Amino acid sequence: MHFTSEQYLDGGGLEREFILGEIPGTLWTPPESGDGALPLVLMAHNNGLPKGEPRLVARARYTASCGYAVATIDAAGCGGRPRSAADEQARGELRRAMQAGAPVDEIEGIFESFIAPLVENAAPEWRTTLDALLALPGIGGPVGYSGWTALGIRLLVTEPRIAAAGLFAGGYVPLAQRAEARQVSVPLLFLLQWDDEGNPRQRALDLFDDFGSREKTLHANLGGHVGTPWFEVEDGSRFYDRHLRAGQ
Amino acid sequence: MHFTSEQYLDGGGLEREFILGEIPGTLWTPPESGDGALPLVLMAHNNGLPKGEPRLVARARYTASCGYAVATIDAAGCGGRPRSAADEQARGELRRAMQAGAPVDEIEGIFESFIAPLVENAAPEWRTTLDALLALPGIGGPVGYSGWTALGIRLLVTEPRIAAAGLFAGGYVPLAQRAEARQVSVPLLFLLQWDDEGNPRQRALDLFDDFGSREKTLHANLGGHVGTPWFEVEDGSRFYDRHLRAGQ
Repeated sequence: MHFTSEQYLDGGGLEREFILGEIPGTLWTPPESGDGALPLVLMAHNNGLPKGEPRLVARARYTASCGYAVATIDAAGCGGRPRSAADEQARGELRRAMQAGAPVDEIEGIFESFIAPLVENAAPEWRTTLDALLALPGIGGPVGYSGWTALGIRLLVTEPRIAAAGLFAGGYVPLAQRAEARQVSVPLLFLLQWDDEGNPRQRALDLFDDFGSREKTLHANLGGHVGTPWFEVEDGSRFYDRHLRAGQ
Repeated sequence: MHFTSEQYLDGGGLEREFILGEIPGTLWTPPESGDGALPLVLMAHNNGLPKGEPRLVARARYTASCGYAVATIDAAGCGGRPRSAADEQARGELRRAMQAGAPVDEIEGIFESFIAPLVENAAPEWRTTLDALLALPGIGGPVGYSGWTALGIRLLVTEPRIAAAGLFAGGYVPLAQRAEARQVSVPLLFLLQWDDEGNPRQRALDLFDDFGSREKTLHANLGGHVGTPWFEVEDGSRFYDRHLRAGQ
């Protein structure tokens, strides 16, 4: 992992860009890093949106200011990374189908065709990144996850180092991850926009019900996909405080 | 309003019993009452359980410690107050019907027969109490409501002084209050136990959907009726902070 740039933020936090093999990422750390064992939050944006997306950056900076190392990457096929020809074709089909008002089944089929491989390809790179982050001086875990639900489920069932997760129910969740939800056992905070245009409410409620975790909380707010109120970012940080800092 | 006893709590808060006409109540105030204009939270327990119920008292003491005046009463027919013969008969029928495993429709009918009048009779006494509380030195509002959903809906549609409400979806909500929900317009925090034995989940979700408020948040946690995690009390206090203290 090589750091390629760094920026001190208002309030004293540090925002560093890094590259790990082919994986570009950003690491935020708080002003006071304390005893060298910062808990870490992996923060992923729905369906692979770019790591520089302003709402992600705002969440990351706030969470870091609460005493966490926070990291995000553009995984394979995500953000600015090259897309496969099949991926480009599927995204073109999706645009045409949505413009043409195609039936829900057809649109879901297209989502499945490119989100499922996106998750499959992204997950190993997040695990590689986790290895590298935990090898850095000053970052000691425990580890939380925040954001993209489909990737989160895949990571939670393959990565025992993740101890708690805040998931945003606003993206397409492939069939494989819906089936894996029952295997998830860590504490969850599941965040739903009640009127999310692209996310059927009942499916999100069913997914919440499916998770195997004994401790899980649903937060739902009125409004559409991008309408999540800021206080949910603060609630998310307190959720991590309960689960990642209890012993500290 | 006459205070009949007072107790200083660990941490310095004050817990006072009062009597207002026939209405017995409890008022909690924080250690530091500041500039004489404490915001006030009216706290009611589901279906008229006694004001001394330990979970209610714990919620009230915590909320007061966050800087609120908190009040509860045993309204007409609630807690230790006398019940009508019709009410006693309905409660007896309910016990027999539940022990006999009666059909849901029958049980719901019995609930409707005694909860609907309970709400009708309790609401005016809560409003009388609100008048008296706001006349006390040191309590200036704004006013929030916490707890029993059916009573809360009735108060919210008849009492413009209540500016925000945290409602617990764990009791029977009479048909009249389900219809009134669309008239509710203040910010809401609606708390649901996902596996509440006596409270059909879908009905609670439908009720959340029905509220007319533009700002409403649902919190749902795994577990049964009495399993609400303590952190929801803390979340509730922060909800009041956002809506009752924003201008302070």
